[in-house]
Amino acid sequence: MDDPFRVVLVSPRNPLNIGAAARAMSNFGFRDLRLVAPYDVAFREAKSAVRSQYILESAQVYDSVSAALSGCGLVVGTTSVGHRDLHIPLYRLEAAARMILERSQSSPVALLFGSEKYGLSNSDLSFCQWALRIPTRDEHGSMNLGQAVAICLYELRRDDQYQSMQFPPRQEAPAEVYGRFAGLLFELLQESGYVHGKSAELKIRRLVQRLALPMADSETWLGILRQILWKIRQTGPK
Amino acid sequence: MDDPFRVVLVSPRNPLNIGAAARAMSNFGFRDLRLVAPYDVAFREAKSAVRSQYILESAQVYDSVSAALSGCGLVVGTTSVGHRDLHIPLYRLEAAARMILERSQSSPVALLFGSEKYGLSNSDLSFCQWALRIPTRDEHGSMNLGQAVAICLYELRRDDQYQSMQFPPRQEAPAEVYGRFAGLLFELLQESGYVHGKSAELKIRRLVQRLALPMADSETWLGILRQILWKIRQTGPK
Repeated sequence: MDDPFRVVLVSPRNPLNIGAAARAMSNFGFRDLRLVAPYDVAFREAKSAVRSQYILESAQVYDSVSAALSGCGLVVGTTSVGHRDLHIPLYRLEAAARMILERSQSSPVALLFGSEKYGLSNSDLSFCQWALRIPTRDEHGSMNLGQAVAICLYELRRDDQYQSMQFPPRQEAPAEVYGRFAGLLFELLQESGYVHGKSAELKIRRLVQRLALPMADSETWLGILRQILWKIRQTGPK
Repeated sequence: MDDPFRVVLVSPRNPLNIGAAARAMSNFGFRDLRLVAPYDVAFREAKSAVRSQYILESAQVYDSVSAALSGCGLVVGTTSVGHRDLHIPLYRLEAAARMILERSQSSPVALLFGSEKYGLSNSDLSFCQWALRIPTRDEHGSMNLGQAVAICLYELRRDDQYQSMQFPPRQEAPAEVYGRFAGLLFELLQESGYVHGKSAELKIRRLVQRLALPMADSETWLGILRQILWKIRQTGPK
């Protein structure tokens, strides 16, 4: 199946959010945007849809939720409220995405997002087999629509294999050591006539960033540089 | 350490995006927002920061990247371009988040986001030990600033344990079977005088959604309902 995912925005009010949803779809490689009773039909000109105009142009507009769901094998609602009696099972996004991916191999899946102000209504949710919740704080659960769409689509594209890659366990020097190291080295190279003017500073800073200074050696290195700098200045101009 | 994370926006241009970043920070429980040379100082009134005003009010504004990074042990840049010669290591967000979380246990970590138009400059990136990339498509890598911040913060709060939870492997009926089932049942209950008017339709649809109809039984159930409905209608009004 070429694209089993339908992103369904129910009664979206702000064209900027529709554009933002389209942009996230393009970022993560989704194409099928469906709008149910959008508040402003000028959405096709939504400005935030940088390089995503093709998604807005092919978006379908429907009068009702049920019409927008035609042909879908699984319908999943999104909600920020965990306490309301949803009448359907509620999963965290991490688990929901695995279930959606599995199901999408055999049939189209619709992901429903409610309006900015009210979210999905009980009536909208009654079309959903289950619902998902992005793990926001209980004290401030409600997300911006465009951001919620982006996070759900990201989670569908996320790849577990990239988690296992870990930094080597040794402790690196903190950023300020790098800064001091680069500063001293730059002074030193100016004094030594290796560089002239400020233009080389960027190159020096990069050079130092690539060093991966061990934390334990920080003071030693800074001491060495200070010592050389002192020595050069002692010598004076030739 | 109470909050080891600093979200640093470098030269952001649009107050809406600053507000969106603040909202995502509030959604996911981050507090320390730092702005370097923001284009519009009216950001504190940014409207999209629904219920996140406290983050904007305590945000610090700096003249330079280096000033904003004071006290940070790790500085991570964000970029949408994989091909540019970054001069520093580049990791996918999934791996980057694990590394950031590990490092944040011992020292503060700064996450740098560039301006909407240009991203982080080479000069900005020279302050970073390494960079991360959200796994967007190569053809359209550049994300909206507010959405990029939201996804990074989500990934830092995501919890692996919620991935293992899987649906039972049995195949459920597609959404349209549920719809037809609910429709037939509703007609049937109207005919039988169990419900009156349209108000009960929602309850019936929920009732059916909670059934978890096995795919293999779909036609049987629909056949049963049709048969009963036919029979009731045959009998006619008493």
